[in-house]
Amino acid sequence: MRPNPIITFTSDFGTREYYVGSVKGTILSACPSANIVDISHSVASHDLLEGAFTLLCSYSCFPARTIHLVVVDPGVGSDRRSILVVTENHYFIGPDNGVLSLVYEKEEISRVISIEAEHHFRQPVSPTFHGRDIFGPVAGNLARGIQPEKFGPEIEEFTRLTLPPPQKVSESHLEGIVLHVDKFGNLITNLSPSAAARLMGREASPVEFQIGDRTVGPHVEYYSQAPQGELVSLLGSSGYYEIAALKKPAARLLNLRRGAKVRMAVD
Amino acid sequence: MRPNPIITFTSDFGTREYYVGSVKGTILSACPSANIVDISHSVASHDLLEGAFTLLCSYSCFPARTIHLVVVDPGVGSDRRSILVVTENHYFIGPDNGVLSLVYEKEEISRVISIEAEHHFRQPVSPTFHGRDIFGPVAGNLARGIQPEKFGPEIEEFTRLTLPPPQKVSESHLEGIVLHVDKFGNLITNLSPSAAARLMGREASPVEFQIGDRTVGPHVEYYSQAPQGELVSLLGSSGYYEIAALKKPAARLLNLRRGAKVRMAVD
Amino acid sequence: MRPNPIITFTSDFGTREYYVGSVKGTILSACPSANIVDISHSVASHDLLEGAFTLLCSYSCFPARTIHLVVVDPGVGSDRRSILVVTENHYFIGPDNGVLSLVYEKEEISRVISIEAEHHFRQPVSPTFHGRDIFGPVAGNLARGIQPEKFGPEIEEFTRLTLPPPQKVSESHLEGIVLHVDKFGNLITNLSPSAAARLMGREASPVEFQIGDRTVGPHVEYYSQAPQGELVSLLGSSGYYEIAALKKPAARLLNLRRGAKVRMAVD
Repeated sequence: MRPNPIITFTSDFGTREYYVGSVKGTILSACPSANIVDISHSVASHDLLEGAFTLLCSYSCFPARTIHLVVVDPGVGSDRRSILVVTENHYFIGPDNGVLSLVYEKEEISRVISIEAEHHFRQPVSPTFHGRDIFGPVAGNLARGIQPEKFGPEIEEFTRLTLPPPQKVSESHLEGIVLHVDKFGNLITNLSPSAAARLMGREASPVEFQIGDRTVGPHVEYYSQAPQGELVSLLGSSGYYEIAALKKPAARLLNLRRGAKVRMAVD
Repeated sequence: MRPNPIITFTSDFGTREYYVGSVKGTILSACPSANIVDISHSVASHDLLEGAFTLLCSYSCFPARTIHLVVVDPGVGSDRRSILVVTENHYFIGPDNGVLSLVYEKEEISRVISIEAEHHFRQPVSPTFHGRDIFGPVAGNLARGIQPEKFGPEIEEFTRLTLPPPQKVSESHLEGIVLHVDKFGNLITNLSPSAAARLMGREASPVEFQIGDRTVGPHVEYYSQAPQGELVSLLGSSGYYEIAALKKPAARLLNLRRGAKVRMAVD
Repeated sequence: MRPNPIITFTSDFGTREYYVGSVKGTILSACPSANIVDISHSVASHDLLEGAFTLLCSYSCFPARTIHLVVVDPGVGSDRRSILVVTENHYFIGPDNGVLSLVYEKEEISRVISIEAEHHFRQPVSPTFHGRDIFGPVAGNLARGIQPEKFGPEIEEFTRLTLPPPQKVSESHLEGIVLHVDKFGNLITNLSPSAAARLMGREASPVEFQIGDRTVGPHVEYYSQAPQGELVSLLGSSGYYEIAALKKPAARLLNLRRGAKVRMAVD
């Protein structure tokens, strides 16, 4: 591995507890030179979809051979597997519950390893904290140069989670949902230029959005083009269309949350 | 010291302010190669017990010779001492108000130093921010190899804080309290296998827990064994028994907080 | 640059989203050895003054040649410039909207560069996320040794923001406002020893503070000198006077927020 191997870390552990720090301790015990980068530890408790979305939107900013550790793990202690996913450019470590699986659609998977080599774990393994006792030590050992195949056998079957797909509802309309409400109150949808092209069978640019019982104002390029007090749509940095408002949380203006329906008219 | 000395950092400074960043700046000014690892900065303001518990549950995951900096410091500026505790495996730096003292029960103390060497401080020392002006610089200087005895004289007396101890209330019952409610709403008690064995004079496994006016459901090994809608008890990753519920915050179901009484029946 | 160049990072991105992690990814893609230090990502959304104040209070704790990245950027995508400010001791990178400008009063500016060299950006540049696509890559490239002048032309005009200044209202009174309420509920004002000296034309020590309709209790040196239940004033670690209370949030006791008026009597 490189001199300062990078390990990103995403979880639903919160930042108040000893959980995140403990995992970092076991990573650094295995690989003292690891550079651990927090993505988020405020994923909603047990929310696989939010964890998967956070990973999806961030992992590709990191250099090749980065290790991405994701621990959203309601089934910890049960017989759900622990996996190490090797793709051309990255490594992913986490429970086999789908939290890693949105990246499978973007990255060519080379191998998926079932993590079973107990001599790489912290002992004794707590049945309630595999982040500390399994995932952290495995990430650290991978970072210091242990080969992926040393952690267990290759497997063919593993859990896939899919984002709720948008639907074509007429020759000029798509319907989707709000995937995520961000810190600014922007509503990030599951509608994207590529989904629109695929469903419509042609390049299909947005003409107008509807959300709740409201017609959204102009489609713009960036937030500060929004006229005062009006809702706008734009193509967000995640690659998905968003509903936003000028320096105001659109989610609060609309009183809407994740899962709300969105309709997009295209040309 | 090693090439990238590790300094963990726990405080009640919050993550919105400039406080945490300033301390990191003074650490790095003394030791630019330090690897600073946040444990938590969301300890409740002035809450020595929560700070001490967070340290207790995390420090032992880190490699030998890690420096642990803990700043929960309501008496900053007064004549409370600043101390550096040297144990066989770790260093601990903080105010002498008990916030370090739960580790004294687990670690053999080699020396306790009263931090007095002002030439290692950032000048002028603010009477309201020793984290930045004393503890950070001392942690950084220790990390870069200054010997502990250079920071001040060894002392024999220092403040000890103890967790509220569980009580034996009959030949088959122990009584304790909720020590901490975590981000998932799990209620972490002060009851543990070792406390039960000590108080009962025998190996004593839990049979049933009572909390508030509720009898807790089955004692399980991991969270997802909890039947839908039922409370369970389990041995948590901190080494203490917990009350939990399946993907639900038990604390909210019970409407209970830290300090609530818990009763454990043992076999 | 040095072996582990330090980059501090302040933003209003929050810690739940993928935004902070993505910026760190693009920094590390340009400079894998960068040591990225979070100052705060909980600046109130779009709040230039809070971002500027957070930077002002923290940057000078860091060693010379530290790079300070500040992204509070409501105008992202518009024609507001991106700038790199070079001072004798530090580098500052961010939007040219004033968020960097409070340091201009404390640091001698050597040069201000308009960031325009697109070959240093992540492509394609999202019009809504310059943190990831422009500021992060530029910070990383500067950290790995690219010279400032390689990022664009030097400019003479740039946006300055000033803290609301305190006023002299009589020969013995100054009037100011609450600049910031911190995590402990301390009210940090815009009144300082240097402002008092400048406005009064003499050394002028505080005798008594008034805030809202309340007269504040004794002026003390540190928090734990506050008598139980009383408000006190003190000179805070930021260099500004504060109103505080013993282990209680003064802001809640007073039911006051940022912007509240404060009056200081001086001798």
